Amino acid sequence: MTLIHPVILCGGSGTRLWPRSRKIKPKPFLPLVGERTLFEATLARTADAAKFAPPTIVTGAAHLPHVEAQLGKVEGASIIVEPAAKNTAPAIALAAARLPEDAVMLVCPSDHHIADVPAFHAAIEAAASLARQDKMVAFGITPTHPETGYGYIRRGAAISGGFDVAEFVEKPDLERATAFLAAGDFSWNGGIFAFRAGAFMTELERHRPEMAAAVKRSVEAGSEDGIRFHPETATFGQIAGESVDYAVMEETRQAAMVPVAMGWSDIGSWQALRDARPGDAAGNRTQGRVELIDCRNVLVDSDGPRVSAIGLEDVAIVVDGDEVLVTTMEGAQLVGKLDGASKQ
Amino acid sequence: MTLIHPVILCGGSGTRLWPRSRKIKPKPFLPLVGERTLFEATLARTADAAKFAPPTIVTGAAHLPHVEAQLGKVEGASIIVEPAAKNTAPAIALAAARLPEDAVMLVCPSDHHIADVPAFHAAIEAAASLARQDKMVAFGITPTHPETGYGYIRRGAAISGGFDVAEFVEKPDLERATAFLAAGDFSWNGGIFAFRAGAFMTELERHRPEMAAAVKRSVEAGSEDGIRFHPETATFGQIAGESVDYAVMEETRQAAMVPVAMGWSDIGSWQALRDARPGDAAGNRTQGRVELIDCRNVLVDSDGPRVSAIGLEDVAIVVDGDEVLVTTMEGAQLVGKLDGASKQ
Repeated sequence: MTLIHPVILCGGSGTRLWPRSRKIKPKPFLPLVGERTLFEATLARTADAAKFAPPTIVTGAAHLPHVEAQLGKVEGASIIVEPAAKNTAPAIALAAARLPEDAVMLVCPSDHHIADVPAFHAAIEAAASLARQDKMVAFGITPTHPETGYGYIRRGAAISGGFDVAEFVEKPDLERATAFLAAGDFSWNGGIFAFRAGAFMTELERHRPEMAAAVKRSVEAGSEDGIRFHPETATFGQIAGESVDYAVMEETRQAAMVPVAMGWSDIGSWQALRDARPGDAAGNRTQGRVELIDCRNVLVDSDGPRVSAIGLEDVAIVVDGDEVLVTTMEGAQLVGKLDGASKQ
Repeated sequence: MTLIHPVILCGGSGTRLWPRSRKIKPKPFLPLVGERTLFEATLARTADAAKFAPPTIVTGAAHLPHVEAQLGKVEGASIIVEPAAKNTAPAIALAAARLPEDAVMLVCPSDHHIADVPAFHAAIEAAASLARQDKMVAFGITPTHPETGYGYIRRGAAISGGFDVAEFVEKPDLERATAFLAAGDFSWNGGIFAFRAGAFMTELERHRPEMAAAVKRSVEAGSEDGIRFHPETATFGQIAGESVDYAVMEETRQAAMVPVAMGWSDIGSWQALRDARPGDAAGNRTQGRVELIDCRNVLVDSDGPRVSAIGLEDVAIVVDGDEVLVTTMEGAQLVGKLDGASKQ
């Protein structure tokens, strides 16, 4: 069996996990769940050389020092340094244009958590099999609650190893999200995909010919520097940024999906982080020196000062250097709007 | 008119205002409401030389440096340094034994807040007049809510300038406290008293003869050191500590009370402190660098780090050095039970 090529997208700043996640040390590079960082855990999930080729990491100059420090010595790994942030479609296309046409790419964000790795691996097998048939394969995460912060995928007819995609649905309101869960044929779009590299480029050329051409030119005119690859800046800079969902998945007639329940979380807020960490009998999650009295489902995470809390429920307390954040779990969606998070 | 002699009791540690109030810098010596410390504000309320004699401060060795630093140069002030903490009855008796028999003492805790000082002064006039008639006068604070943390005074028959005391009532449960407020003839016992010095000693001799004798002996055998007076240690150390409420007020047939509504607070918890500070339109009180989103009736007090809070109501957030406290207002009663507060 041919190896699967992990393509790890390392962008984004994780402002909703401020003040722990900061511009100078963003979310993927923090040990938010367990002892490994999210990026290290992402690498580890596709490190088995019997199944996976060495990873391709697509990242920007700002994240590069963190990527190189945490990647360590992985034989054959390569890092594509995006000259500019252009969203996921050009990032994936850079990797696709660099890989052999028949390479099956597994595209993974670098800042998600997956609790059930065997379930993920089983889904990868199914997705790779569909990708080899030139399907554009989305991983459809079995939803556990009516989340309004994610896009949804409605599955269509069963095909071998997965399903056709009936439709991609933008972030719904709570009423629609609740209806999706009740309907049972909706999954979360977790931003994990499998493509044959050549097939991806063919679909991109069909639906976004300018983007495809610019990516190809910037790769042809790019330069290698050790394991780093630098696409040509001027050409890449002219690309109109767009997500792979818009540029390819919603356009292609080859869309497929593989449903998977794997304890997935995008760790997209302090609430999501709380839920991804194991709790004690009262549902509290603490890190650092903490004393709690009469608290339930509280997250406390301090990098130094002792935190003492009394009488709280569903509240997150985060201490990081000279910043203290206290938010309800509901309010955690607004963390990115705080001065501290937005004016770094 | 003869001058009134302020006697300011400077004991207690204020553990329920931890972590701002600490053993090394306790509650009376902190600027908790406004720019002056509670002790400084207590002095200022009786600083008018036309009405008040210089103050007598009764304190322990631990508080002495703070007392001397904040007292400043007050002509004629004296500091009685208690050899041991024996509660309020011996502390007041030390001052009574040192003052002329006909001096009218105004006994004030050093760590309370009074918003309406003219109302306090009017009550002092009435109380002093009763004290000159050898009444043991308690100030009865008009209650604003069914507080279960205070003792209550039920007033009896009206007398000139005040009332007889029908009974002193220990801290009630909520049901009784609510009934007290509805009844209308109950006041809080705020720990503020007026006595003629000689009359106080007479009543103490009658009801606690051993305490009175020991206090007198320790004063006679004591020594002066500048403005400090040190009672003799061994004798004072043998006294059984007791509050003035038990030792005198509940025993005497001379008890009287003067009702007063003066925006009084004992600043006995973070909730009480919040209520004593002026709030913004949403009822929030902030000190230090603070950003709030969707917060109501929140107290934030930081000595350094920025505090960002979202979605909270009736919560106190206090940052002091290496300690962070987050508590509901209801939970604030339990602050003293935290490791940080109890194991200083």
